Amino acid sequence: MPYKDEQLHEEKVFKDPVHRYVHVNDRVIWDLIATPEFQRLRRIKQLGTTYLTFHGAEHSRFNHSLGVYEIVRRIITNFEDSPRWDASERLLCLCAALLHDLGHGPFSHSFEKVFKLDHEHFTQQIILGDTQVHRILERVEPGFSQKVADVIDKTYEDQLVVSLISSQIDADRMDYLQRDAYFTGVSYGHFDMERILRVMRPLEDQVVIKSSGMHAVEDYIMSRYQMYWQVYFHPVTRSAEVILSKILHRAKYLYEQDYVFKLKPIHFISFFNESVGLRDYLKLDEAVVTYYFQLWQEEDDPILCDLCERFVNRRLFKYIEFNPNQQMNEWMELHRLFQEVGIDPDYYLEVDSSSDLPYDFYRPGEEEERLPIHLLMPNGSLMELSRNSDIVESISGKKRTDHKLYYPADMLQKLPAEQPAKKRIAELLHLDLRR
Amino acid sequence: MPYKDEQLHEEKVFKDPVHRYVHVNDRVIWDLIATPEFQRLRRIKQLGTTYLTFHGAEHSRFNHSLGVYEIVRRIITNFEDSPRWDASERLLCLCAALLHDLGHGPFSHSFEKVFKLDHEHFTQQIILGDTQVHRILERVEPGFSQKVADVIDKTYEDQLVVSLISSQIDADRMDYLQRDAYFTGVSYGHFDMERILRVMRPLEDQVVIKSSGMHAVEDYIMSRYQMYWQVYFHPVTRSAEVILSKILHRAKYLYEQDYVFKLKPIHFISFFNESVGLRDYLKLDEAVVTYYFQLWQEEDDPILCDLCERFVNRRLFKYIEFNPNQQMNEWMELHRLFQEVGIDPDYYLEVDSSSDLPYDFYRPGEEEERLPIHLLMPNGSLMELSRNSDIVESISGKKRTDHKLYYPADMLQKLPAEQPAKKRIAELLHLDLRR
Amino acid sequence: MPYKDEQLHEEKVFKDPVHRYVHVNDRVIWDLIATPEFQRLRRIKQLGTTYLTFHGAEHSRFNHSLGVYEIVRRIITNFEDSPRWDASERLLCLCAALLHDLGHGPFSHSFEKVFKLDHEHFTQQIILGDTQVHRILERVEPGFSQKVADVIDKTYEDQLVVSLISSQIDADRMDYLQRDAYFTGVSYGHFDMERILRVMRPLEDQVVIKSSGMHAVEDYIMSRYQMYWQVYFHPVTRSAEVILSKILHRAKYLYEQDYVFKLKPIHFISFFNESVGLRDYLKLDEAVVTYYFQLWQEEDDPILCDLCERFVNRRLFKYIEFNPNQQMNEWMELHRLFQEVGIDPDYYLEVDSSSDLPYDFYRPGEEEERLPIHLLMPNGSLMELSRNSDIVESISGKKRTDHKLYYPADMLQKLPAEQPAKKRIAELLHLDLRR
Amino acid sequence: MPYKDEQLHEEKVFKDPVHRYVHVNDRVIWDLIATPEFQRLRRIKQLGTTYLTFHGAEHSRFNHSLGVYEIVRRIITNFEDSPRWDASERLLCLCAALLHDLGHGPFSHSFEKVFKLDHEHFTQQIILGDTQVHRILERVEPGFSQKVADVIDKTYEDQLVVSLISSQIDADRMDYLQRDAYFTGVSYGHFDMERILRVMRPLEDQVVIKSSGMHAVEDYIMSRYQMYWQVYFHPVTRSAEVILSKILHRAKYLYEQDYVFKLKPIHFISFFNESVGLRDYLKLDEAVVTYYFQLWQEEDDPILCDLCERFVNRRLFKYIEFNPNQQMNEWMELHRLFQEVGIDPDYYLEVDSSSDLPYDFYRPGEEEERLPIHLLMPNGSLMELSRNSDIVESISGKKRTDHKLYYPADMLQKLPAEQPAKKRIAELLHLDLRR
Repeated sequence: MPYKDEQLHEEKVFKDPVHRYVHVNDRVIWDLIATPEFQRLRRIKQLGTTYLTFHGAEHSRFNHSLGVYEIVRRIITNFEDSPRWDASERLLCLCAALLHDLGHGPFSHSFEKVFKLDHEHFTQQIILGDTQVHRILERVEPGFSQKVADVIDKTYEDQLVVSLISSQIDADRMDYLQRDAYFTGVSYGHFDMERILRVMRPLEDQVVIKSSGMHAVEDYIMSRYQMYWQVYFHPVTRSAEVILSKILHRAKYLYEQDYVFKLKPIHFISFFNESVGLRDYLKLDEAVVTYYFQLWQEEDDPILCDLCERFVNRRLFKYIEFNPNQQMNEWMELHRLFQEVGIDPDYYLEVDSSSDLPYDFYRPGEEEERLPIHLLMPNGSLMELSRNSDIVESISGKKRTDHKLYYPADMLQKLPAEQPAKKRIAELLHLDLRR
Repeated sequence: MPYKDEQLHEEKVFKDPVHRYVHVNDRVIWDLIATPEFQRLRRIKQLGTTYLTFHGAEHSRFNHSLGVYEIVRRIITNFEDSPRWDASERLLCLCAALLHDLGHGPFSHSFEKVFKLDHEHFTQQIILGDTQVHRILERVEPGFSQKVADVIDKTYEDQLVVSLISSQIDADRMDYLQRDAYFTGVSYGHFDMERILRVMRPLEDQVVIKSSGMHAVEDYIMSRYQMYWQVYFHPVTRSAEVILSKILHRAKYLYEQDYVFKLKPIHFISFFNESVGLRDYLKLDEAVVTYYFQLWQEEDDPILCDLCERFVNRRLFKYIEFNPNQQMNEWMELHRLFQEVGIDPDYYLEVDSSSDLPYDFYRPGEEEERLPIHLLMPNGSLMELSRNSDIVESISGKKRTDHKLYYPADMLQKLPAEQPAKKRIAELLHLDLRR
Repeated sequence: MPYKDEQLHEEKVFKDPVHRYVHVNDRVIWDLIATPEFQRLRRIKQLGTTYLTFHGAEHSRFNHSLGVYEIVRRIITNFEDSPRWDASERLLCLCAALLHDLGHGPFSHSFEKVFKLDHEHFTQQIILGDTQVHRILERVEPGFSQKVADVIDKTYEDQLVVSLISSQIDADRMDYLQRDAYFTGVSYGHFDMERILRVMRPLEDQVVIKSSGMHAVEDYIMSRYQMYWQVYFHPVTRSAEVILSKILHRAKYLYEQDYVFKLKPIHFISFFNESVGLRDYLKLDEAVVTYYFQLWQEEDDPILCDLCERFVNRRLFKYIEFNPNQQMNEWMELHRLFQEVGIDPDYYLEVDSSSDLPYDFYRPGEEEERLPIHLLMPNGSLMELSRNSDIVESISGKKRTDHKLYYPADMLQKLPAEQPAKKRIAELLHLDLRR
Repeated sequence: MPYKDEQLHEEKVFKDPVHRYVHVNDRVIWDLIATPEFQRLRRIKQLGTTYLTFHGAEHSRFNHSLGVYEIVRRIITNFEDSPRWDASERLLCLCAALLHDLGHGPFSHSFEKVFKLDHEHFTQQIILGDTQVHRILERVEPGFSQKVADVIDKTYEDQLVVSLISSQIDADRMDYLQRDAYFTGVSYGHFDMERILRVMRPLEDQVVIKSSGMHAVEDYIMSRYQMYWQVYFHPVTRSAEVILSKILHRAKYLYEQDYVFKLKPIHFISFFNESVGLRDYLKLDEAVVTYYFQLWQEEDDPILCDLCERFVNRRLFKYIEFNPNQQMNEWMELHRLFQEVGIDPDYYLEVDSSSDLPYDFYRPGEEEERLPIHLLMPNGSLMELSRNSDIVESISGKKRTDHKLYYPADMLQKLPAEQPAKKRIAELLHLDLRR
């Protein structure tokens, strides 16, 4: 039997707290899961620093990747009877689902920003480069790895396949909303996925939703909205991210200044040089990063040392609402005052802005073109979701942004009382100095 | 207001997936949670290598410690009306609950065995030694840290307090059964804790259970039984533990042989020397261990290198049922055959035996004296649980042991076919060489 | 001890699938639950005919009433520390919560419409009239029953007390959304009630919500919205209600025409005469109604007989979208055609319109003045919910109406093919005659 | 297409709180659900008088019957690949599952005992007699109704089919344990059904369980055990049943004494005469029974009147532990004393004994021969469950019985204090006369 058709002697299952069981029958999938590149995802948290806000959110991207695979598996099992569905793309869909996040690194958000990386780029490299994953995919058939990469990259010819894992209602989102809700323990993030799967229909170049299932989709969109604002953009999580970015900035800066680290940060060198190869990238997981942060608590540089100690021991920055566009003067004054009292504002004063666009219809030519969700009406026509749903319409295309200013309250409180700038800083930051 | 009575300006809550919310009102508890020693528990998994079997089991001891605190908080809130209850011990109970696992290190089970450590010893040291935790406890009142240490050590005078966190139905077990069930996703581990809390009564030197709640307790005992055999002793988890122990043994052996590591394993030196101080111990969390295991994949020693690669990439040993007491001849033959084919049996052949005694009545003088669970009968008398419950009686005092023999199937399969010992090894291990 | 302060010897609990346990400590509450008037609620379904759509929805108003009591109990336990809270109103709140739905009759919606009744009127009568409930309340203190009646009637002086059970976020709604979701099995209806309870604050004449809990309230509003459209207004449920109303109309009509029923409908006489006294009202529960409907299946009047048989055996009317305001001509044509083919349109053709206003801010002078939900901002000011929440704003004040036309498809299909009107009727009703 | 193969134009689903969705594709199943005989099950509670103990337990046998159908549907979907499985028996299995409880009447337990009925007999009659159900089954193929009846009667030739709905681990039990747990809200009754379904294998004349699934089966057996003692045999539920039986006895006795009822109990006549035909039987549902009980509250016979009032308003008997075998003297004394004080012991003093045998291996020739659960071992052999499981072994074959004596505490308390027998009665019944 050709490798691509090989079935496991007996179905294997993973016990999954979200989907109950993840079922694997294909030898190819089983082999992909066993690769070092896929196992590495166990060492990268799904939600980065969120565990410092919601202590249950310690789950890894390995978890999520299995979940996305399982959802796609269920969707295409339902599609089997549809004339539109091309059964020969089954394995391609499963592989793309399983591997879609393969390039994520530790605390992706901060690392990507500071070191100008792109995890999607590394997903492509892992699939196409010199890796076990690549070799398994090529065993399926020559060129198969490129197909998988294309699906993940959204450039694959059959856009129906792409839409399974990259659309406004794809397996990726359906898994992470439920999974992140489960592990954080919040009551948002629930929607009737079983019903959504039952009303999904493959149609030309997209998956559409039978209109009778519209309310389940509304519920999903609302879940997404709540999860973004209640979990993903939680200001405490962002405080930890700010500190994390500052650590990376400081370490890079010190490296560039020829600072001598007590232990040479070999894992970071190529990051500092912005010349990260695949091999270096794969070596840097969250265990390694955490190891360094712990080491750096004992470095001589007081800023690096302090920031690492903050991150490791969760001594985070406080925050206030702060709109940098409207409060430029305060910003400049604070910057100046921080310098005056000897607290480097480049590392200890930061505005973080988080934005979300919960759902959008198609706006050609805009920054982020999003494919809308289409309802399949009883008469066979398609109708864009927000035209049929009041609730979705109300949030459709409306970007919401939240600005916070982060600062180290403890440092400020320890300033000597006679320090003239102290009172003014406290005033600007609404900081109660008596506590 | 004295520090010990200080309340937070406003109640703080942690969202907890198991208990919904963990409530904190005491300044002391809040401060303890913020210490580096307590935050360190975030970097130690509650279930060690279990995540390699149940991918959801990535939760930390930080999670569990908050949970035990919360359960004790609820129990003693219920006790407030009881004349037996001494309200002045409230804070002591909460602190002991929160800190009871403070001395756990990375993959405790294996580390303790290989390096002859005892996490309970370190719990005592952290509470009594030069730590932030210690300083906070002493601020409550001089000598308070010793009291907390005594409660955890079970030597505290008021055994009622001790029994809240160390008995056959304590807050510790009630939390971990539910929590581990939640994160693994198994359907065992559920019992009606709310009911158990409602029927708990403080009585002299123990917590007893109103007899009307007996069935909830039966359910709890059964949950415990199932969790041990379905989760805690899962043979795949134990395979990972066997490999982990072998890594530690090998590294220690190499160190003793003056092997030159590419990077000096500074974090491990005092472990190898069996002279671990508190400071060294606190530095070694699972991030650090995982970091080393990744480094050691590139060591020159083939055994260390192979074992680390197995652990990191989850290339585990296979296993068969094997009773070392009855199969001594096979054991010796396998040992010899492994040597013959050049696979070191000291690292690649191991019997692991797991035993559990699900519940026991009191047997004075026995190895492990266990305080039984007592039911408070309607007439005010006490009756030991197993005398009243058929189910509990049936498993009471019955130790069950499971033996498995672990070996590297892949290595054996790669042996040359002409290797004469190969066939016999396969026969003894029921290994199908065709796969 | 005065009756109003009497506590049960031991707390009583009811196992509740929604709130886990309902706790009763007051003798008064215990005695009220035991009255025939309260036990009667076991014989009245919470959701009327909904069980014909969602088979799990067989739960009674008894269930719900206990749930509302329990939620109010929890809310005011949280209020105990607040200076605004008047502890002497505790028992009043609990009684009003428990008894608020006491006047509901069988299938209230239809009965009220056909017989011009008002369940709120009967709630008042049961509390103030010659009943066991009344006697228990008066034992608390003379005039107490009037206070309870006033709270339920929203005329009680202290509007804070009123708002606990009658506002846009009251215990009544919080219970029924969760309970109806639980029993129907739908995935809507979930929100974080525990959090909402924690952020409720008594303030002057209303319960307000700390702004940090806004998202939990948004989630609650969305739950409400989904439950109305997915469950409460389900077109199949409404089909059963249409038939039910028609039965009542027909029976009343026959009675007025001096039709001789095989068994004299003694329970219905005062309803037909629109002179229902308290005693008659209390006797008519759903068992009695169902009994009559079964009897009437054997009546000689073909319309009554057919309608009852439909209701009892769930042979419902079909429906299409139909806007009576815009489709007056079709309506008149159908009416005429039904007469032509001998199907009485007064009983077999009906438009049902359901409307919901999911949330509204205060509009003085409007039909239904609704008190808005107020957020308590960090600075102590109040802000109306929809001014702070995009989602709520989007549905605020927007009434949505759904119109359906109901008709007996089976009857039409059985019309002889040569019947000239048949084809035109089928056309107007989009009815496929081949099935 | 022949009727038996006819598929619905589109799959129909029922939202089910226990199994999420019940799926129907076969026209035959759809038609059976729509029959008056099946719809009648909506008017019969699954758990009889249990709702008077657990207020959530108001669900009907309609609910449960759909659930059993759904479980069988899932099991045989899994069987499709097995060579042992005969696909032509699919529809037979589904029909038998759906209809297995069709003959249940109102409060079956009490009615069967008092009127010497047998619901299984009526199930056969409904399937084989002049009913819509029968006509639909015969449309499948002549003689099909007999096959369905035989499967339910356990006499069908292919015992594998029988074992799906009648064995110690059948779809019937799996549904009711979960369903009754859900509606009562108890925490027992949970087990991993999905796993059990995955390890079920058709083998010759029975369904066996792959040994790897043994623990899930243990959990199921324990659930069953707990549900029996915590829910099904709850002493309060049995109190209501005792009263119910006494009502039926009294009404029958009065009828036999030519007592003139205010309203002739036409629905009961054939029951009193013990000559119940199918038509009469089908007419008597719980609505009708409840209607009569309400009427009878106004009868002149004081015993019938009092008992009905107790049942309707839940004024139940109290109970004590009482072993009639060992306490014959007390029993006789109480009997005599009750007569002395004018309380008829035939209606107001009753011992109820409930027994359960949680699991049994096969004991040929014994009263109730039970087919054991067999594990399919890795080597292909079968092993009886209790030989492999300590827990199951411990309760295997052990019948446990609970005896309670029921009596009307309120009546006794109202006896005049000077009544000489009062004190002695109170003593024998451990009744506190001060309350």
